[in-house]
Amino acid sequence: MPGRKKRGQQTVVFDSPPVITAWASVVGPKEGEGPWGQDFDLVLEDYLFGEKTWEMAEHKMLREAITRAVDKRNFMPEDIDLLLAGDLLNQIVASNFAARDLEIPFLGLYGACSTMSEGLSVGAMLMDGGYFERIVAAACSHHYTAERQYRFPTEQGVQKAATAQWTATAAGAVLLEASGSGPSIKSITVGKVIDMGQTDQSDMGSAMAAAAAHTIKTHLSDLNLPGDYYDLIVSGDLGQIGSAIARQLFVRDGIISPEYSDCGVLLYDQSQTVGSGASGCGCCACMLCGPLLKKMQKGEINKLLLVATGALMSPVTSFQGESIPSIAHAVAIETA
Amino acid sequence: MPGRKKRGQQTVVFDSPPVITAWASVVGPKEGEGPWGQDFDLVLEDYLFGEKTWEMAEHKMLREAITRAVDKRNFMPEDIDLLLAGDLLNQIVASNFAARDLEIPFLGLYGACSTMSEGLSVGAMLMDGGYFERIVAAACSHHYTAERQYRFPTEQGVQKAATAQWTATAAGAVLLEASGSGPSIKSITVGKVIDMGQTDQSDMGSAMAAAAAHTIKTHLSDLNLPGDYYDLIVSGDLGQIGSAIARQLFVRDGIISPEYSDCGVLLYDQSQTVGSGASGCGCCACMLCGPLLKKMQKGEINKLLLVATGALMSPVTSFQGESIPSIAHAVAIETA
Repeated sequence: MPGRKKRGQQTVVFDSPPVITAWASVVGPKEGEGPWGQDFDLVLEDYLFGEKTWEMAEHKMLREAITRAVDKRNFMPEDIDLLLAGDLLNQIVASNFAARDLEIPFLGLYGACSTMSEGLSVGAMLMDGGYFERIVAAACSHHYTAERQYRFPTEQGVQKAATAQWTATAAGAVLLEASGSGPSIKSITVGKVIDMGQTDQSDMGSAMAAAAAHTIKTHLSDLNLPGDYYDLIVSGDLGQIGSAIARQLFVRDGIISPEYSDCGVLLYDQSQTVGSGASGCGCCACMLCGPLLKKMQKGEINKLLLVATGALMSPVTSFQGESIPSIAHAVAIETA
Repeated sequence: MPGRKKRGQQTVVFDSPPVITAWASVVGPKEGEGPWGQDFDLVLEDYLFGEKTWEMAEHKMLREAITRAVDKRNFMPEDIDLLLAGDLLNQIVASNFAARDLEIPFLGLYGACSTMSEGLSVGAMLMDGGYFERIVAAACSHHYTAERQYRFPTEQGVQKAATAQWTATAAGAVLLEASGSGPSIKSITVGKVIDMGQTDQSDMGSAMAAAAAHTIKTHLSDLNLPGDYYDLIVSGDLGQIGSAIARQLFVRDGIISPEYSDCGVLLYDQSQTVGSGASGCGCCACMLCGPLLKKMQKGEINKLLLVATGALMSPVTSFQGESIPSIAHAVAIETA
C-alpha cells in the first residue's frame, strides 16, 4: 500500500526498526583534546594521517571509520551491501574516494552537516524495507580542507568572526543490520529546506536554527509525542548562537521542556577557541559514533533524537547575494 | 527478512514496481536545436531564464521541470512526499534552492552525471517499500555554470579538447507513484566506484566507460538476463569516445548483441560542435524525460535499461594528480 509507513507530514515509522550493531569514529588532534577524547576509536596525531594532502587524509579518515565499524562485527568491506556517505568537499570527493577503495556499492549524498542524519534516514528505510542486509551510513569533514574550500587559504591565518564555527576534523560510520544487539532506529523525519533570509556565512548556526526547530516540531507532532519524550534531543551543528535561537523557537512552537543540546556545542571545550562551536559533517557523525552511542550502550540515554542540520548554500551563491537555505533531518534512536 | 529483495551482487527487484506516472524536461537553446527539440516540454530562449545569474537560472530550470511533471497529474508541489535531486554545482545548490522554493521534504544526492539513475533507484526503493505515496526524482545541469566551476571562465573562450564533452543545459523530473498509468521500474542496480587510473579531465567518457560496463554486466548477471533482453541499453554520458570503449568492454565481458546507445551521443546532432558529445546531470535526465519515455509511451521501446554514469573527481583532486573514480547505476524501466 503506498505511503503506508508515513506518519503525519514528514515522518516514517519502521515495522522492523533497523539495529545499529556497530559504529566507529576517527577524529583529529583538536577533537581528541576536547571533552570526549577517550570516546573516539582513533585520535589522529596530525592532520595528514600519512597522506600527501588534507583531502586524501579526509578520505582515509572516512575509510578508516567505515572499516573499523565493519570490523567490530567481524565483517569485511565486501560483506557490506551498500554505503551511504557524504562530506563537505566539492563533489563529495572524500566519500567517492573512500567508496572506491572499499569497493562497496555506493550512493553519494549531499546534505552539508545534515549528512549523518540523511544517511541514517535513507539507510534505515532501505534496511527496514528488506532491500539490503548490511548498510553503512557515514560522514566526515576536515578542518583544513573546509577552510581552504569555503573560506581562505589556511596559510593566510585570516581572523574568524566570533559567530563562526570551527569545522571539525572527524569521521563517523554506523553499521545497520536488520537484527542484532544495539540501539535501533524507530522513526525518521525528512526535513524541508527552510530559508530565513540570512546571508551571513560567518553565522550559519543562526541560519540553520529554524530548520532544526521545524523538523523537531514536525517530528513530535507527526508522532504525537510530548516535548519531553526523548532523553536527549541533539541538534548539530548550530553552535552556541544557533542553539540559543533554537531554544527560543521551541518556546514559540510550544515544545515543552525538551532535554536539548547541540553537537556543535558539545564537541569542544569552551577553552578551545572555536568561536560559536563545532561544525562540519564529521561533528554530528563523531559525536553520535562516539560519546552518544556509548551513552546509549551504557543505558545513560535510552531515547535519542539526532537532528543534524545543514547549511545548503555555496560560496558562489553567497557571493551572488543569495541567502542560506537550511535543512535538518531527525533520526529517533532508542534502546530496546 | 533482511535483504530479501536483493538479487545477486548489487541488484534489487521490486515486488510492486513503482510507476512513472509523469515526467517533464526543460532544456537550453542548443539542446532545443538538436534532434529531439520537439520532445522536450520547454526549450529556453536564452541561458538566464529571466534570472540574474546562470546559477539561479539552473535552479529555476529544475524547479520548472518538477512543477511541470507534478502538474501533469494535477498535483501541487505540496502533494509530493519526497524530492530526490542533485546537480553538478558545488554543494548541489541548484537542487537546494529548488527544494527551498517547492517546500517538498528533500534528500540531496551527489552522483555527478549518474544522479538521475541514483534518484530513480532510491526513489523506486522508497516507493516500493511503502514509505511515501508520491516521490519526485530530478536532476539538472547548466553549460555555463559548469564551465566556470569546472573549467575556465566562459568569457576566456578557451579551446576544448576534441575528447571533451559539452555539459548540457537541461533538467528532467520524474514522478513516481505506486500505481497508475505509465512505464514502471522493475529493478535497479547500485553501482560500485570503478577507477581505471585515468587522470584526463578532458576525457571523462574514457574514465567512466568501465563503470558503465561493470554495472551493465552485473545487472544482467544478477538477474540472469541475456545481453539482448532490453530493447535499449542507454548509458550516459560516455560520449562518442567513451561509448566506443564501452562497446569493446561488452565484447570482453561476453555481453552479446545488446542494443546499445549513449545519451551523450544522442542529445546533440554531430554538426553542433560538441566534441565527444553531451554530458552533465541534465543530459540523461532530459533524454529520459523527453524522447526516451515518449518512445516508451508510444510502444517504440518496451524494455529500457538506463545506466547513467558519473565521474566522481573534483577539480582539486585532479589538480593534486588523483585519478577519476567513476560510477554507474542502472534502472530497468518496462512497459506493462
